[in-house]
Amino acid sequence: MNLPRQPGCELCEQPGGVLVHQGPEWRVVRVVDAAFPGFYRVIRQGHVAEFTDLDAAARRQGMEVVAVVEQVLRDLLQATKINLASFGNVVPHLHWHVIARFGWDSHFPQPVWGQALRVVDPPPERRLPVTLEALDARMAKALDAQPAAGD
Amino acid sequence: MNLPRQPGCELCEQPGGVLVHQGPEWRVVRVVDAAFPGFYRVIRQGHVAEFTDLDAAARRQGMEVVAVVEQVLRDLLQATKINLASFGNVVPHLHWHVIARFGWDSHFPQPVWGQALRVVDPPPERRLPVTLEALDARMAKALDAQPAAGD
Repeated sequence: MNLPRQPGCELCEQPGGVLVHQGPEWRVVRVVDAAFPGFYRVIRQGHVAEFTDLDAAARRQGMEVVAVVEQVLRDLLQATKINLASFGNVVPHLHWHVIARFGWDSHFPQPVWGQALRVVDPPPERRLPVTLEALDARMAKALDAQPAAGD
Repeated sequence: MNLPRQPGCELCEQPGGVLVHQGPEWRVVRVVDAAFPGFYRVIRQGHVAEFTDLDAAARRQGMEVVAVVEQVLRDLLQATKINLASFGNVVPHLHWHVIARFGWDSHFPQPVWGQALRVVDPPPERRLPVTLEALDARMAKALDAQPAAGD
């Protein structure tokens, strides 16, 4: 597949997080954010800005990758809610945020991008029922098994 | 179709905005927000909380409704970027925010849920190239023509 690249685009030039799955059309990375440890990104391989820059088949495929990530977060983290978002205001390269939210987290019930509502102690990562390594491993396995995430 | 309802759920009991399309599985409303006039919601008919509470066919259908809304915003508003998000932290009933963003808007490039970065004058609605009535009318027409938005 010929992947268009945009010089200077952060997500064309860098992984965008800890790589957990590399498919031909989508990759999945874990975002390193101490406040939100169950935070992954589904990133389009190749530069497009908007969801509707993809055709229906590519949109479907991308959302099925998002669904796999969401399901693993639900299965392993006992999250209060999963948040999904595609903005791209700062880096206009199509990527989906998939974020496990908890009633105790610093911003809940507000989105993670606003002001913190509380200090969280002990730190979020220690509150998760699994380690990030175990979470990444299960995520990678689920994505490898998902047809939409492959070719 | 039998639609599950949750007593006390705001989106089970109210439209959630100005109704522009009513389909059997999804409705579309315009959010009345002076700061963000090009702001619609795609709301699941019937109560489910998470994207992965739907099966793959229903997910695909919902995202195609989102794509129609996005495309109309792109076609009519010359937006800088379209933002898509499904949170449900406050009202855990599946709904997608589809928001036209502009370089001049009060929060750009931040998400709309944080602190305003600037005062916008003249007001946003007067800066749009079309009226909200014209936008709603085009949205309704595009949704009526989209198979995924119907039955």
